[in-house]
Amino acid sequence: MFCRPRQLLLASSLFRNPATFPARSLRHYSFQVFRDVPPLRELRRGLLLAKRSVGLVPTMGALHEGHLSLIRQAAAENTDVFVSIYVNPTQFGVNEDLSSYPRTWDSDVEKLERLNDELANAGGNTGRITAILAPTSKIMYPTLPPSSETDGDGSFVTITPLSKKLEGASRPVFFRGVATVCMKLFNIVTADRVYFGQKDIQQTVVIKRMVKDFHIDTEVKIGSTVREEDGLAMSSRNVYLGSRRRTVGLVLYMALKASEKAYKSRNLSRDDILSAAKSITQEVLSKQEALSPAERVLFEVDYISLADPDTLEEVDIVDATKGAILSGAVKMLPLEETNSGEDCGLGDGKVSVRLIDNLILKPLN
Amino acid sequence: MFCRPRQLLLASSLFRNPATFPARSLRHYSFQVFRDVPPLRELRRGLLLAKRSVGLVPTMGALHEGHLSLIRQAAAENTDVFVSIYVNPTQFGVNEDLSSYPRTWDSDVEKLERLNDELANAGGNTGRITAILAPTSKIMYPTLPPSSETDGDGSFVTITPLSKKLEGASRPVFFRGVATVCMKLFNIVTADRVYFGQKDIQQTVVIKRMVKDFHIDTEVKIGSTVREEDGLAMSSRNVYLGSRRRTVGLVLYMALKASEKAYKSRNLSRDDILSAAKSITQEVLSKQEALSPAERVLFEVDYISLADPDTLEEVDIVDATKGAILSGAVKMLPLEETNSGEDCGLGDGKVSVRLIDNLILKPLN
Repeated sequence: MFCRPRQLLLASSLFRNPATFPARSLRHYSFQVFRDVPPLRELRRGLLLAKRSVGLVPTMGALHEGHLSLIRQAAAENTDVFVSIYVNPTQFGVNEDLSSYPRTWDSDVEKLERLNDELANAGGNTGRITAILAPTSKIMYPTLPPSSETDGDGSFVTITPLSKKLEGASRPVFFRGVATVCMKLFNIVTADRVYFGQKDIQQTVVIKRMVKDFHIDTEVKIGSTVREEDGLAMSSRNVYLGSRRRTVGLVLYMALKASEKAYKSRNLSRDDILSAAKSITQEVLSKQEALSPAERVLFEVDYISLADPDTLEEVDIVDATKGAILSGAVKMLPLEETNSGEDCGLGDGKVSVRLIDNLILKPLN
Repeated sequence: MFCRPRQLLLASSLFRNPATFPARSLRHYSFQVFRDVPPLRELRRGLLLAKRSVGLVPTMGALHEGHLSLIRQAAAENTDVFVSIYVNPTQFGVNEDLSSYPRTWDSDVEKLERLNDELANAGGNTGRITAILAPTSKIMYPTLPPSSETDGDGSFVTITPLSKKLEGASRPVFFRGVATVCMKLFNIVTADRVYFGQKDIQQTVVIKRMVKDFHIDTEVKIGSTVREEDGLAMSSRNVYLGSRRRTVGLVLYMALKASEKAYKSRNLSRDDILSAAKSITQEVLSKQEALSPAERVLFEVDYISLADPDTLEEVDIVDATKGAILSGAVKMLPLEETNSGEDCGLGDGKVSVRLIDNLILKPLN
């Protein structure tokens, strides 16, 4: 293996041990950093009585432009933005990438600090980042250890059948974990608005359903997917791709765009819409297979879905007055052979990287 | 069947149809009655900004002295008491008594009105009942119909393994339903304190766990079990007993008291403590079996449990510094033969009535 090493810090032990957050340096931030709930609640209560508004942006850290875009939106709509940074174990399956998920506390905080400078210089018409919540797992799961087993014990929120569809079919505990941790975060922060990216479209549908069904007093706001210049959706997992898989990974977006184009030309049947995507994925895969193992990138299409925007049920014919959600997942397989000096990404190209993306097919006029 | 009919109204259709709540008469109450969430939230927000405190007493109606005692406690500790009246379908199993659960809106409201008079005359040192929340199922379960199936779809809160023990062993969906509806009610009311009776001891343990694990910003307060003069725990289901089963139904309390006595005499082993209860239940059952079908009452002991107060795990030896929860359930079987003019209870003695009770074994000094 000759991959060029990446500079990204895998700081899982740092993230989990409160003692490694240097108390002294916290004083210099333009926001407060909270490790525990009661002091955050005190701040929140003060803001409530002062009739200020709070927007919550839940993250797992490894912040990229997608997160920053959500925070900007939250700052435009609230006086105070709370950002949570917590890598939630219960949404990772037992065989998933919890231990290798990028943990980048120092650079995350630096990005948030720079963003606060940007917001301060914006002329006073936006809110600021007021608080970062970076709890330990013992705070978030105070009784039983966080279980990733499908039949594991604990206190959970389940949203079915939504959670079993699409991503949930491959990742059976994922949305249970997401709903559970979001319920906790929502209860802790009691935000006026909560912000999620369209990139994780099923997550937005599940959270909206949870907020409705449990009468959570907050408004769910969805921010547009932020993309690289060529169209690749930004994701914390992209750092694992490396340049070769990064290029071929665009296949999913290209496939979805082809299906979107078919829809916009008023093709409403499932077959017409999805065959456009399948042509693209098959063509790209064939080209890769023809290359040598040191040049090519293999991938598997997990699913391409055309679904109802509220129920995520697959649709045979799109109701043009309602639109649909077009989404997909591909698994970029490990590089078979690597080359000297090649940028193989974090993990040296040895880990599979699952990419997801989606486009909302809006009602046709 | 010669049972004397009871006057209690089985008003299930009335409860479920908002149109049957006469809007005119609502004006005369000393509290506001809410069918929907937004106006209640408006009231709640005003109370918050005025720095008043709210205690929530969740009920399924069929109010008895046990509920009223909880409301008095809530009024002593808060400026405003909210009482919810909602027969929650998801906590009844498919073969349980949802349809026959007593619904007594008019007499419930009358009792609350009298209680408010009592509170008003108490000299100004207590709060009052400010709001009744009596939502429809469409409000409480806005998306999918409320499912009682163990594998039914919906948005649920599950608290395991607590929910599988004791009552949960006989009633697999019960605590999922309780936790789910309480999460909704807690989110709607955002009470400073919530009140539950010790009678449903496992419910109090599950709710405390839920509040802790989900960081719900409320305090769980437990009110003592209110008993009839002879010691029978008050329950909305007691109206189904009739006088004959009412008398024999005291067996559970007597059995628990015998075990408590053994514990207080410093017997700490499970066998020593529980054999005291078993002697009582066996003795009472033998006496009944010797009587004729028109005189006797048969019953089945579902369980007698000696459990850890936090985890509800069964204990072999009670830790005297920690104490334990002693609890039980008996099923009073239908009367085999009834007599002319006999008070057989609501349902003419034909339905089984499951009675539960418990005693907290406090730490020994």
